[in-house]
Amino acid sequence: MLPDAVSKHLDDNREGNLARLKELIAFPSVANSRPDDCRRCAEWLVARLESLGLTARVVEGEGRPNVIASCHADDAAPTLLIYGHYDVQPAEPLDEWQTDPFDAVVRDGFLYGRGASDDKGQLSAHLAAIEAWQRAGGGLPVNVKLLAEGEEEIGSPTMESFLAAHAEELSADAAVISDGEFHAPGVPAITYALRGLAYVEVTFRGPSADIHSGVHGGAVTNPINALARLVAALHDDAGRVALEGYYDDVLPLSGEERAAWERLGHDEGEYARSLGVAALGGGEKAFAPLERRWARPTLDCNGIVGGYTGVGSKTIIPAMASAKISMRLVADQDPKKVVAAFERFVAAHTPPGIVAETRLNAEARPVLLRRESAEMDAGRAALTEAFGREPVFVRHGASVPITEQIQRLLGLDAVLMGFGLPDDNIHSPNERFAVEQLHGAARACAAFYQNLRKGLTRPGESG
Amino acid sequence: MLPDAVSKHLDDNREGNLARLKELIAFPSVANSRPDDCRRCAEWLVARLESLGLTARVVEGEGRPNVIASCHADDAAPTLLIYGHYDVQPAEPLDEWQTDPFDAVVRDGFLYGRGASDDKGQLSAHLAAIEAWQRAGGGLPVNVKLLAEGEEEIGSPTMESFLAAHAEELSADAAVISDGEFHAPGVPAITYALRGLAYVEVTFRGPSADIHSGVHGGAVTNPINALARLVAALHDDAGRVALEGYYDDVLPLSGEERAAWERLGHDEGEYARSLGVAALGGGEKAFAPLERRWARPTLDCNGIVGGYTGVGSKTIIPAMASAKISMRLVADQDPKKVVAAFERFVAAHTPPGIVAETRLNAEARPVLLRRESAEMDAGRAALTEAFGREPVFVRHGASVPITEQIQRLLGLDAVLMGFGLPDDNIHSPNERFAVEQLHGAARACAAFYQNLRKGLTRPGESG
Repeated sequence: MLPDAVSKHLDDNREGNLARLKELIAFPSVANSRPDDCRRCAEWLVARLESLGLTARVVEGEGRPNVIASCHADDAAPTLLIYGHYDVQPAEPLDEWQTDPFDAVVRDGFLYGRGASDDKGQLSAHLAAIEAWQRAGGGLPVNVKLLAEGEEEIGSPTMESFLAAHAEELSADAAVISDGEFHAPGVPAITYALRGLAYVEVTFRGPSADIHSGVHGGAVTNPINALARLVAALHDDAGRVALEGYYDDVLPLSGEERAAWERLGHDEGEYARSLGVAALGGGEKAFAPLERRWARPTLDCNGIVGGYTGVGSKTIIPAMASAKISMRLVADQDPKKVVAAFERFVAAHTPPGIVAETRLNAEARPVLLRRESAEMDAGRAALTEAFGREPVFVRHGASVPITEQIQRLLGLDAVLMGFGLPDDNIHSPNERFAVEQLHGAARACAAFYQNLRKGLTRPGESG
Repeated sequence: MLPDAVSKHLDDNREGNLARLKELIAFPSVANSRPDDCRRCAEWLVARLESLGLTARVVEGEGRPNVIASCHADDAAPTLLIYGHYDVQPAEPLDEWQTDPFDAVVRDGFLYGRGASDDKGQLSAHLAAIEAWQRAGGGLPVNVKLLAEGEEEIGSPTMESFLAAHAEELSADAAVISDGEFHAPGVPAITYALRGLAYVEVTFRGPSADIHSGVHGGAVTNPINALARLVAALHDDAGRVALEGYYDDVLPLSGEERAAWERLGHDEGEYARSLGVAALGGGEKAFAPLERRWARPTLDCNGIVGGYTGVGSKTIIPAMASAKISMRLVADQDPKKVVAAFERFVAAHTPPGIVAETRLNAEARPVLLRRESAEMDAGRAALTEAFGREPVFVRHGASVPITEQIQRLLGLDAVLMGFGLPDDNIHSPNERFAVEQLHGAARACAAFYQNLRKGLTRPGESG
């Protein structure tokens, strides 16, 4: 149990923690398009961390900067690496937001704004927990290192080299990543697997300019028609991805996991309704939807554009068309092998009269984590204390590339303790974070630090 | 042969005719998006026609206005209906134009601007010819009625009802349509068949908002993936359109026509090079490219859009995706039957989790004209006189819906005497019209009016 003073500080500072999260959301820190706002956001974090007694700095690199901070509690304490990211998804389409995505407002118990849940709100929970220990608990019970990334939403293109370069500085005894979600409202979860990512963009070029589709139609390969054939061919009729060898390295789900997931009582009808679709679909017909999202690799076209897209008619065969395609990968698929297979597939599906170009936008390896460890136990107990219910252990369909990189480069199987709710609209218009989740999350983080000290302190040392 | 005075007037007014064409191009008369510019353009035409001694007026209707003008020469003269259109294709993509599309400039013998060839330049040739007869030839040799349409580039949605309502006012003994092109530079052509059009727009809606493709990928039907499958399925592997009954009403090409086309010496390699493609493609593999363009129906996707199309990555399953699809039809296909087949096809290819919506943007019937008539002879002789070479008789892949409507509603098989060149970039950036074509066209129009008086005047009447 948290010390009373820490608990009281958390209770007394609910308004302040919410206000500071609003400040953080006000930076439109979109990695690709808003570099200056990213830098200002990173500087805001440094100032906030320094105000909590941490040593903090903005670390410049190839892309958007990262923030590193640290605080030494005492020599006997274990060291915890806390990871979050301050960059956010683009807010487009802007006209579907009910309020300004970067001027967060509370409505019906939810704070609405881009990044409210993913990941500024969850990062803020750790800041609140650190504050409570520093100001009211006599200092942090663990040594803390904190890393706030600036390029998570674009696939962490430079994080691997960054982690390798700062491996010594970021070395720790345990790691926690709060960039995920509950299994359901009231049902906390610890995630032990994440999908990887291979995100490519393919462009088909045909005639040197848009040409008249009446004059030339029938004699010239249409880049849109051809691209549609390529995209369509990427799945077979059973919903399987048609890339050669795509499933060769996929680890099958264990019987124990499948049984545990069945006990989760996932309601497919309710899930479909929450997304506004009449029926589920889109993946391998041979697998249940939950397994398709958590343990099977997929392929989705995230964007497509070509030709005339304005109002009314324009009768052209366009000069080009392009598609953004992301594949979510599961252990032990290798994104590099997948991208190579994709490129071979494009080459084999490029018809005469078309020149194809494929570029890699992002890649991340899938990860599968140990479920039995002192830090997993610390997380389980912290969530139970803060939310009154044992967490379930789940996989997750999204990618948090840092997880696999922390495993491979720092040797740590992180505790994935996420605080979002499934209907937070992350990556969508009207992203939100439940105000009660923010406060519960701060409490869980504070308890996690305490539990970790107990669980990881070697016998004979002071704990 | 033209009277010397008429011929001299045409020669002396080359600069003036070019200057007035530039004035006409300066109106961005795009039917869908620029209604005010369309009206101003129509008013400019009325003023110009009145200055030539015609009675002219802007006729308002449901969409953009049309212009009707007339001039009675004498009771013995046959009456000619001249058709052109003053609306133009959208100029987008603007950044591919080397100069302002609506501020026409002459470069290397070509006038560059939107509508320079299609159709303001060709309409201007008739204005120049009318001026020469009125000012220097003692008046027009035929009674003239002129119709300048305002919605040709969007498929003439209201022209059919307009023609029906004004059938009496527009009745004539012959019709000429100048909205086409030479077979090749130096090779004039009379077109005796045009393809029809069925232009539809299909939208696939999935989740109620864009959702995270990692979290949900594999369990939710992706509107882009599904739309790509629909578009791909619209052709079979032989390049045939897969709509049920699509080819049932297609008239096969006669052996005589095929032999005449072979004598045209169409160079497929040169044609491909002119479009910037390494190889032709895109139609029915069982037919030669020229036949595919002129005498076979086709299906092209003119535009597609869905999901994130900005810079870099966004990992979403989008709420919707849509495609604009045009089908070019040949005699005796019926656009209404084709659209009905398309709608059935969409219904059969809409997967679970997707709601489809199909709308009709435009339709036009194909047309096949008599090649033996006094007015065809008049056109043949006029082109020969103006350009020093007999025209070839060809079909054309584009649609000029008015042609079929004039045939059906006014009972006239129009002479399709077009003056563009195949590389005029109509419907593309950097549209142009050769300055010499403008002047030759004015001469051909003037000669056509004269020939028509001879050819159509009944014996015993003054000619």
